[in-house]
Amino acid sequence: MIVVLKQGVTEAKRDQLINWLQDLGLRIHLSVGEYQTVLGLVGDTSQVDMDLVSSLEIVDSVKRVSEPFKCCNRKFHPEDMVVECEGVKIGGGHFAMIAGPCSVESEEQIVTVAKAVKAAGAQLLRGGAFKPRTSPYDFPGLKATGLELLKIARQETGLPFVTEIMSVADLPLFEDVDMLQVGARNMQNFDLLRELGKLDKPILLKRGLANTLKELLMSAEYIMANGNERVILCERGIRTFSDYTRNTLDISAVPMLHELTHLPVIVDPSHATGMARLVPSCALAATAAGADGLIIEVHNDPIHALCDGAQSLRPEEYTELAAKVMQLREVVAG
Amino acid sequence: MIVVLKQGVTEAKRDQLINWLQDLGLRIHLSVGEYQTVLGLVGDTSQVDMDLVSSLEIVDSVKRVSEPFKCCNRKFHPEDMVVECEGVKIGGGHFAMIAGPCSVESEEQIVTVAKAVKAAGAQLLRGGAFKPRTSPYDFPGLKATGLELLKIARQETGLPFVTEIMSVADLPLFEDVDMLQVGARNMQNFDLLRELGKLDKPILLKRGLANTLKELLMSAEYIMANGNERVILCERGIRTFSDYTRNTLDISAVPMLHELTHLPVIVDPSHATGMARLVPSCALAATAAGADGLIIEVHNDPIHALCDGAQSLRPEEYTELAAKVMQLREVVAG
Amino acid sequence: MIVVLKQGVTEAKRDQLINWLQDLGLRIHLSVGEYQTVLGLVGDTSQVDMDLVSSLEIVDSVKRVSEPFKCCNRKFHPEDMVVECEGVKIGGGHFAMIAGPCSVESEEQIVTVAKAVKAAGAQLLRGGAFKPRTSPYDFPGLKATGLELLKIARQETGLPFVTEIMSVADLPLFEDVDMLQVGARNMQNFDLLRELGKLDKPILLKRGLANTLKELLMSAEYIMANGNERVILCERGIRTFSDYTRNTLDISAVPMLHELTHLPVIVDPSHATGMARLVPSCALAATAAGADGLIIEVHNDPIHALCDGAQSLRPEEYTELAAKVMQLREVVAG
Amino acid sequence: MIVVLKQGVTEAKRDQLINWLQDLGLRIHLSVGEYQTVLGLVGDTSQVDMDLVSSLEIVDSVKRVSEPFKCCNRKFHPEDMVVECEGVKIGGGHFAMIAGPCSVESEEQIVTVAKAVKAAGAQLLRGGAFKPRTSPYDFPGLKATGLELLKIARQETGLPFVTEIMSVADLPLFEDVDMLQVGARNMQNFDLLRELGKLDKPILLKRGLANTLKELLMSAEYIMANGNERVILCERGIRTFSDYTRNTLDISAVPMLHELTHLPVIVDPSHATGMARLVPSCALAATAAGADGLIIEVHNDPIHALCDGAQSLRPEEYTELAAKVMQLREVVAG
Repeated sequence: MIVVLKQGVTEAKRDQLINWLQDLGLRIHLSVGEYQTVLGLVGDTSQVDMDLVSSLEIVDSVKRVSEPFKCCNRKFHPEDMVVECEGVKIGGGHFAMIAGPCSVESEEQIVTVAKAVKAAGAQLLRGGAFKPRTSPYDFPGLKATGLELLKIARQETGLPFVTEIMSVADLPLFEDVDMLQVGARNMQNFDLLRELGKLDKPILLKRGLANTLKELLMSAEYIMANGNERVILCERGIRTFSDYTRNTLDISAVPMLHELTHLPVIVDPSHATGMARLVPSCALAATAAGADGLIIEVHNDPIHALCDGAQSLRPEEYTELAAKVMQLREVVAG
Repeated sequence: MIVVLKQGVTEAKRDQLINWLQDLGLRIHLSVGEYQTVLGLVGDTSQVDMDLVSSLEIVDSVKRVSEPFKCCNRKFHPEDMVVECEGVKIGGGHFAMIAGPCSVESEEQIVTVAKAVKAAGAQLLRGGAFKPRTSPYDFPGLKATGLELLKIARQETGLPFVTEIMSVADLPLFEDVDMLQVGARNMQNFDLLRELGKLDKPILLKRGLANTLKELLMSAEYIMANGNERVILCERGIRTFSDYTRNTLDISAVPMLHELTHLPVIVDPSHATGMARLVPSCALAATAAGADGLIIEVHNDPIHALCDGAQSLRPEEYTELAAKVMQLREVVAG
Repeated sequence: MIVVLKQGVTEAKRDQLINWLQDLGLRIHLSVGEYQTVLGLVGDTSQVDMDLVSSLEIVDSVKRVSEPFKCCNRKFHPEDMVVECEGVKIGGGHFAMIAGPCSVESEEQIVTVAKAVKAAGAQLLRGGAFKPRTSPYDFPGLKATGLELLKIARQETGLPFVTEIMSVADLPLFEDVDMLQVGARNMQNFDLLRELGKLDKPILLKRGLANTLKELLMSAEYIMANGNERVILCERGIRTFSDYTRNTLDISAVPMLHELTHLPVIVDPSHATGMARLVPSCALAATAAGADGLIIEVHNDPIHALCDGAQSLRPEEYTELAAKVMQLREVVAG
Repeated sequence: MIVVLKQGVTEAKRDQLINWLQDLGLRIHLSVGEYQTVLGLVGDTSQVDMDLVSSLEIVDSVKRVSEPFKCCNRKFHPEDMVVECEGVKIGGGHFAMIAGPCSVESEEQIVTVAKAVKAAGAQLLRGGAFKPRTSPYDFPGLKATGLELLKIARQETGLPFVTEIMSVADLPLFEDVDMLQVGARNMQNFDLLRELGKLDKPILLKRGLANTLKELLMSAEYIMANGNERVILCERGIRTFSDYTRNTLDISAVPMLHELTHLPVIVDPSHATGMARLVPSCALAATAAGADGLIIEVHNDPIHALCDGAQSLRPEEYTELAAKVMQLREVVAG
């Protein structure tokens, strides 16, 4: 950690700061330049509150030289991590197609969609049983019943499934779930992350609406530091001023995360755009940018089909997209 | 709810949509204009998925005419709500000064600060026992011990206190807490909100980093719809491109929220700016904008005092600021 | 245009508004519903100040049913526009590779880079002669001399070139320039846009840092309404809270713009990311998303080469990327 | 300037960088630590392209220790600057009330409003003659005629006036204008800034929609470095995800700018919010935050008055607000 002092700081004030830092067990390299004084902190700086130090009156700025994330840091794990989920591999050259409806609605619905996406090439089924809803008056999902329906769909198709968990209290219900998803709104629900770190199941961790890549990695770190290394990161759009799409897909997050971490990185173009007709372009873009997989909403509801719309693709649209994604993968990975 | 159809939509497609909406139990007012066709939906439109409808291919746009929030909507409660907390009133002309350290660290610390802020005019003590930390390696707070120290400080000073709850699982520990705070990262932890809605205690609900005012109100609605009407909203800065301050204090949220809801609105200038030296200006601005209170970090740590810094004010700085806030209140409210 | 009135508006106030709108020459369809009153405005609503109306006390909201852009609106021009520049076609299935150094520095530099990018498959040369610099103390470009060097490079390679114009006053110097670029900071320099609308040259219009797609289209409209239809739009990253990259590449802007307008849409991954090592992934992503071309910075400076870095690619990196882009194009367009 | 190298950089690569920096005339302090290597650059670092260096593969990060702005830097000018405009002082304890209509529409309108705002206590008149409009089809202002009308209003009331200039080409028309305004969209129109730097008139420089405080100061630097030191900065709202108001008033910019620069800082609550009913709260907030003045839109149009709305205040609303601002000033400045 490097602390740059302001110009004109008195020696007395400077030494008070140095003494305080030394009391924290750090060694200090003092470098007094013509125009600047810099303190180099050596030792375990993870305990130093960077915000506190940078807000001190005599401090101009503070820089952490070593990143605060360790378990998920590529520096210490140069090889890509391959996360396995019931035989499906993700990362390190393995590309995962995950698809299914936004919400599980009925046995017929989930089984039909599961069969359709499997036929199109999907290896994992998605479907919401516990739904985070902005309004307390909106449909919160079928909950436990939804999980049972997902298991039926799994039995019918052989596809393992991923579904969102919203609360530590619901954990017992998720024992027979193949992969647990942490939604964007819960990315910093640290208690939940900690508990997921104690499981022996892969975790799909979605980036929060306004979270930096560093914060996403710190949340992965919560899970990994508690013992569960099987974390898959998911870019799903961030909140910006741009108002045509629901969110803004941060496509450069894919190569940037690949540089920072060895964890697999997938993309959710359905939530990122909120518009079915933009999903194919963004799914192809994510594939070209090097994503390790795609999680896409597919429905089978006649009204949707009738009206040609919504965030979800129709099965035939997904089939067409999946074929193109495969073609693209060959060029990108080849 | 108003649905504007795109130009050139066929009657067949239009009627399919109308039939579907009627199946949901709605009456439809069809208005065919020269350049546009508009459907007016009458009935209980709360069950209509606005995102779905607006994404239909034949739909140009959808507008909800009645807001989806009811319990916290000023339209139905024209009078300001006054929230009481152990004799302290907030809202409807009652201004609350809430102050205390970021984290509870020791009995001496919390009692000293509590006495200092009380002397300066604060009516409520704040202090973190359970701390949400971005990193799993950072200090998570004294937890249960911290709550006990807050109670001691309350006994010593008579100040009721507010402290953050992060998880439903911790609720039993909060039985003797006067006001519970929901932090920015948990603003959409809907399970937590629902449980807080069953308490008979005031809730301080902080706006999330990237949440709109409507989303904040919907989260208040979660608490209120479950029976607990004593909600205080808190603007604490939003995440923007601006990089000088930690967050950007959205000052216009104060008058805007006052227009939308009858709930009290307070401001946290400490987290909004992240810099102690900007806190006084922003606290005065919030007061002038009509806030119903201020929650400000005050510490009593000699190192902080020594170094003149951090997000927290020193007690003497808080005393000076509190006096100015009182003066300003007289002009603003007068 | 649709005007939704607030609940409980008196007839007197409502009629005042109707009279005022009628005085503007509009016909009003009044629709009084159980819960809402809606005015449908028919006629030339382009003169109605939407912000003004929506801010009236009795108005709940206003919606423009017809977009305010006409010349660049795909509704009126369903066929893709193909923009030609000295024999190079862009749009409508024609993909343009534009490349060259950030700034023109010397004859040797620009000619060397021009030859290298041509060999790699680029059809257009880019190079800055007039450079917008945040600081008045930074190098502002070689200006007129730079334009002369670009012409030499054109003569040596046969590549037409695009370069940025910053001021109407400089127009006479640009007579022999093949394509003029409007930089992000000048996207709403309306006087400049108007003058460019009088030229018979293609214009490369970059999206501003914080501009919506609608604003970008309105700026294209400025050029087109003045007679010059040859406008190419360029997504080059927007400013968000995200801090790893210089800007955030808004990849969904590509398909969205293709839906809204018939103009070609290209992407600048160099400025969008600010980091050479992210450029290839983002260039491939843009290609997969359906962009009509890429504008990429390539340099040939030994120091850059030595140090392996900067926003610009080295010629050999560009050659490799260009080959991959071509492969991808075949899959995407095929 | 401080350059932090990545871990594990070879000595050869490091020395290449050092040689290159030395060739730029800089002295290098090399500090090799256990975990990090830091280069301290001494000399005229203003010529070093920070983005270039920070993007080099071997570089972890770069920090500029001395700010790149000099003329407007408070470090070199500890005393507040007082800008004078025809006898009206702004800054250094002098508070300026600037008010008037958005656009100049007619002699009667501008004279009536000018008299009204003067009676309310305004010292400067504002009014747009050249209007930046997003759409080429919108009213662009009365231009030269508008300037003439402003002069008539000045003659009638004695109020000097400020009005926006959009283009260098219009400069001759502004000879008898008292203060020139640079609008948000032109904040980085560097050619315009440079020309304004050659005038002997005060310049009101508005912050761009998505510009940082540093960029605002660099634009002020453009004007000042060319000889004109009379610059007034204006915060007028930034573009964020927040969608209730047109922009988000960045209130903390006021104290932050006061710390960074000695230039006066005023606030425009009309554009920041876009809603007349939010203007008073935000104007009072700005005053409390220490702004050196307020620029507020006031109209006198019967339709506006009739309908109670728009971004502009009615004269009687302004009068009431102005009185409250004066009261607040006494508390804040007292």
